[in-house]
Amino acid sequence: MKKVGVVLGSDSDLPVVSKAFDVLDALGVPYEAHVLSAHRTPKEASDFASSARDNGFGALIAAAGMAAHLAGALAANTTLPVIGIPVKSATFEGLDALLSTVQMPSGIPVATVAVDGAKNAAYLAAEILAVSDEELRLRLERMRREEHDKALEKDAQIQKKYNK
Amino acid sequence: MKKVGVVLGSDSDLPVVSKAFDVLDALGVPYEAHVLSAHRTPKEASDFASSARDNGFGALIAAAGMAAHLAGALAANTTLPVIGIPVKSATFEGLDALLSTVQMPSGIPVATVAVDGAKNAAYLAAEILAVSDEELRLRLERMRREEHDKALEKDAQIQKKYNK
Amino acid sequence: MKKVGVVLGSDSDLPVVSKAFDVLDALGVPYEAHVLSAHRTPKEASDFASSARDNGFGALIAAAGMAAHLAGALAANTTLPVIGIPVKSATFEGLDALLSTVQMPSGIPVATVAVDGAKNAAYLAAEILAVSDEELRLRLERMRREEHDKALEKDAQIQKKYNK
Amino acid sequence: MKKVGVVLGSDSDLPVVSKAFDVLDALGVPYEAHVLSAHRTPKEASDFASSARDNGFGALIAAAGMAAHLAGALAANTTLPVIGIPVKSATFEGLDALLSTVQMPSGIPVATVAVDGAKNAAYLAAEILAVSDEELRLRLERMRREEHDKALEKDAQIQKKYNK
Amino acid sequence: MKKVGVVLGSDSDLPVVSKAFDVLDALGVPYEAHVLSAHRTPKEASDFASSARDNGFGALIAAAGMAAHLAGALAANTTLPVIGIPVKSATFEGLDALLSTVQMPSGIPVATVAVDGAKNAAYLAAEILAVSDEELRLRLERMRREEHDKALEKDAQIQKKYNK
Amino acid sequence: MKKVGVVLGSDSDLPVVSKAFDVLDALGVPYEAHVLSAHRTPKEASDFASSARDNGFGALIAAAGMAAHLAGALAANTTLPVIGIPVKSATFEGLDALLSTVQMPSGIPVATVAVDGAKNAAYLAAEILAVSDEELRLRLERMRREEHDKALEKDAQIQKKYNK
Amino acid sequence: MKKVGVVLGSDSDLPVVSKAFDVLDALGVPYEAHVLSAHRTPKEASDFASSARDNGFGALIAAAGMAAHLAGALAANTTLPVIGIPVKSATFEGLDALLSTVQMPSGIPVATVAVDGAKNAAYLAAEILAVSDEELRLRLERMRREEHDKALEKDAQIQKKYNK
Amino acid sequence: MKKVGVVLGSDSDLPVVSKAFDVLDALGVPYEAHVLSAHRTPKEASDFASSARDNGFGALIAAAGMAAHLAGALAANTTLPVIGIPVKSATFEGLDALLSTVQMPSGIPVATVAVDGAKNAAYLAAEILAVSDEELRLRLERMRREEHDKALEKDAQIQKKYNK
Repeated sequence: MKKVGVVLGSDSDLPVVSKAFDVLDALGVPYEAHVLSAHRTPKEASDFASSARDNGFGALIAAAGMAAHLAGALAANTTLPVIGIPVKSATFEGLDALLSTVQMPSGIPVATVAVDGAKNAAYLAAEILAVSDEELRLRLERMRREEHDKALEKDAQIQKKYNK
Repeated sequence: MKKVGVVLGSDSDLPVVSKAFDVLDALGVPYEAHVLSAHRTPKEASDFASSARDNGFGALIAAAGMAAHLAGALAANTTLPVIGIPVKSATFEGLDALLSTVQMPSGIPVATVAVDGAKNAAYLAAEILAVSDEELRLRLERMRREEHDKALEKDAQIQKKYNK
Repeated sequence: MKKVGVVLGSDSDLPVVSKAFDVLDALGVPYEAHVLSAHRTPKEASDFASSARDNGFGALIAAAGMAAHLAGALAANTTLPVIGIPVKSATFEGLDALLSTVQMPSGIPVATVAVDGAKNAAYLAAEILAVSDEELRLRLERMRREEHDKALEKDAQIQKKYNK
Repeated sequence: MKKVGVVLGSDSDLPVVSKAFDVLDALGVPYEAHVLSAHRTPKEASDFASSARDNGFGALIAAAGMAAHLAGALAANTTLPVIGIPVKSATFEGLDALLSTVQMPSGIPVATVAVDGAKNAAYLAAEILAVSDEELRLRLERMRREEHDKALEKDAQIQKKYNK
Repeated sequence: MKKVGVVLGSDSDLPVVSKAFDVLDALGVPYEAHVLSAHRTPKEASDFASSARDNGFGALIAAAGMAAHLAGALAANTTLPVIGIPVKSATFEGLDALLSTVQMPSGIPVATVAVDGAKNAAYLAAEILAVSDEELRLRLERMRREEHDKALEKDAQIQKKYNK
Repeated sequence: MKKVGVVLGSDSDLPVVSKAFDVLDALGVPYEAHVLSAHRTPKEASDFASSARDNGFGALIAAAGMAAHLAGALAANTTLPVIGIPVKSATFEGLDALLSTVQMPSGIPVATVAVDGAKNAAYLAAEILAVSDEELRLRLERMRREEHDKALEKDAQIQKKYNK
Repeated sequence: MKKVGVVLGSDSDLPVVSKAFDVLDALGVPYEAHVLSAHRTPKEASDFASSARDNGFGALIAAAGMAAHLAGALAANTTLPVIGIPVKSATFEGLDALLSTVQMPSGIPVATVAVDGAKNAAYLAAEILAVSDEELRLRLERMRREEHDKALEKDAQIQKKYNK
Repeated sequence: MKKVGVVLGSDSDLPVVSKAFDVLDALGVPYEAHVLSAHRTPKEASDFASSARDNGFGALIAAAGMAAHLAGALAANTTLPVIGIPVKSATFEGLDALLSTVQMPSGIPVATVAVDGAKNAAYLAAEILAVSDEELRLRLERMRREEHDKALEKDAQIQKKYNK
């Protein structure tokens, strides 16, 4: 199976991004984690993206806060799908990271998920790989059903507690 | 090749979305266009999403404005990658559509592009299909190079005009 | 008397929504609580709304955060009045939920209250039922008078303390 | 049938609010229109609200822009459901009117619709009256079906044009 | 000397507003404190404003949060200067209160100070009374000089600590 | 009678500010107009404020856009009441000017009115002077009554047109 | 004298940026104009920045809209001062470009000016070069005096027109 | 070497600004710290700026919150480069300070860094001085390389931990 590249703009993003690792682990999707910065290690970041397809990656995830250029910087150097996680930092409730990630100019898309939405970044990466991977698709659908059933169970509990 | 499903929440979104058609045409990606509303035709919208994979779709694009639920409503009914285009309407500069599209809860991702970013939605859909389609990848990369060369040409022009 | 349906998008919304239960209890308005998600259990949510009138409901309340589609998803499947409570989550101060709830397209209204405004959702549901329920109206008016009198008492206290 | 009271904060709101009249006319809901201001005619506004139920009203709609106090000022003087239309004015894209209308304190709800959402204010008022009016409910449902069918027709048109 | 009327929309605003009392005490400006709500006690609030000038008030201060209508509701009933303090509540960082207070329509001004700016509301009230009160003006100017001198002292301290 | 000083940060603010002149003319309040900039003519601006009280001014109005420092720069140099008009410029809908004007630190208040709210700045200045000017107060109250009566007339017109 | 490098993210930014050329021309500061994109020509952009100091540049100006990464991408590759002009595009009033430009992580500063503030970018570049260029400093100060005198002239005109 | 002047609007900004001192110390850049307020000590602030160049300063840094006028007030009185640090205060996440600092009118630039971005203000001041100071440039570049190497080390650590 193709790998997912998970790139953190800073190791301080790890508490947010580790939830993506959990989802990828649960779905059995192989991945590689990196700390690469559009600003502190720009050359390494662009080299990573340029060679990502040849190195067996099928999708990239980039997490960054503030003027979050990382996802865009990767996307500028590959035609692999790049998923951006805007990370909330000390100010602006993540709005700076969201706009810096999602408002890309024509030609260089970034598939943006919710602020701190690391889980969904992982699900999206898996959905992308599952387009041509029947087995992964089945695992994704099983996970959906489990979430669905958990939600129904909570419905039952709340009905029991509040509806007399 | 798998098709891309392009769903408009309203036919008033057509001027924005038609740019996605242009990109898909230029890349030779087959697609189907629909008008389906999470609010006016909710059943048809969920049926479309539920059967999309079986009907040969590899990715879905949903364009909607205001409380833009369409992409999320499709994503709730399929594990195909769903790309959301927040459409700017008469107020809020598209912020309402952006937040309604991107801030999805865990488990149901929407790959969000810029407000009115129909071109990038098409590029992203093509990138997703190109993960397992070598020929499409080559077309995407050629298009990138052409954009790159056009940009350099503009650089040359502006240098000629302003640098004496 | 007709019932009020109170639907939580997630059981994590319970601390906010439980204040609606308190108001409905105090007013003697019967209600049913559910956990239903526009994204995790979309079919169950739309079935609940479609059959709500026949099942004796007179108004629905939906509480959800982030890309808060729940109230709109219910409203798409019923002509009962649907009241939306935007729930504040970890980012954006509830603005995402507010815009996702209130900015509904023409034809499918959601009666939106303040962010985390569960009490007012319950009062509004009661006001709606009281349009044709004289007794409930009297209870609502008594509650208003009590709030009024409490406010005057606080005025008296603060005057005593600060006005010499 | 009970009437709907439609109150404009200023006659400059008429182009927005007249769409509510169209919907009420189409649904056969009787209504009265007024220009009353929370700031220029505060006494008349509160008198109107205080006596509205006795004067045969079943729901009130208030449209105002900027620091939009009108809906709240009416709600403070009646336990009838009050629907607020935030009107977009020269600045802030209607955000000032939205927040001034929706962020009501506990005990005095305003059922807020989208910025300039006059049509939905009318639909919501009709839904409220239809809770105890079977015939109006049927008219609302017929209107929904017509909107649904129009949307499907647009789907057919766009499929014909774009899907080859 | 004319009094300042200080009106709280809710006694929960007291921690913010008490700083206004401190400033008025320090300046020797007489004041009266009230809890009056535009929504829970609308009649009492408008009566207070209508009779304020005759009762010896020279300026009013109103503090309220969320859809902060209080200052506007007072201003609608008097031509005394009304000063509005937008109070920050659980969401929106006080933006809702600021816009609800400051965006008044033509003819009914509210002199708005910063979010939670109770001190400045008191200073402004004193400045207004000092237009025709020479002694109060001198006290205001002495207070300014003291603040000025304190600031210079802090400059001296920081220079001593950091400039070697 | 004391004069009102009306200061424009730039002569491009004249279309907005001229409405303040109209109101002051109508109320018979004497005023002086100036173009003074906190940034281009900082010394002249602070000199104007420092000497304003001695020169017969009773209140100052300052209109400025973008990083609107003018009202604050005047307030820093006088204990006269300073009224700030945030002027909308090419971006941000006037939010930059509003926050730059209203968010003053403790000790130096600016009485802020709505974005482009020049009329209310004039009314507020008149209300301030009227605290100790009985005749001006009467003129203000007559103007209020006229506005009140005009609003009622519009109510009558709209009732005639829409209520059948 | 050292040159200023003026880099446009797209030639569509030219109407905004050309005002910077006017200021640099007026001050006699030599400059070079380029079109370079962080996304379409990332390698050329980083090469330009890496070699800028050796090529005789003393400061760089970068203008870009939306997810405006250009200034940051240049700053990541040089320790020359980089000035960012956030350019307003079709949505968000330039807020996306402002936050993407100014919210840089520690270690890689971008000197950000106002949205569409091309003139000030040029003034700032000149101020930076003038730190060690006495003659340029004199020209800057003369320009300031001229602006100061023009402002005073406008003050005189407006006084003549409005003060009777 | 020329000095950097670091001006705090209030000594409460010290926890933010002290990080600028650390960077300047590390780079061996001489500096002077001051507490000067655009509002409480306007004359001292403008005198400081007017004489700054003659007193050996090469760049100024100004930190202020809320209606942050300080950087602009300094810039109005010098043609030295002035760097503004918007300081986050109790409300608005620093947006008020950011807009008050960055949105300067043409002719008087302020080089704005991120909210609470004191480190980058110091780096930027050093970059400005380094334009004509070869040794400082070398120190800046060494610091960049160290940051670069630290980032790569973190990449190695995270690869070791997560990539199996």
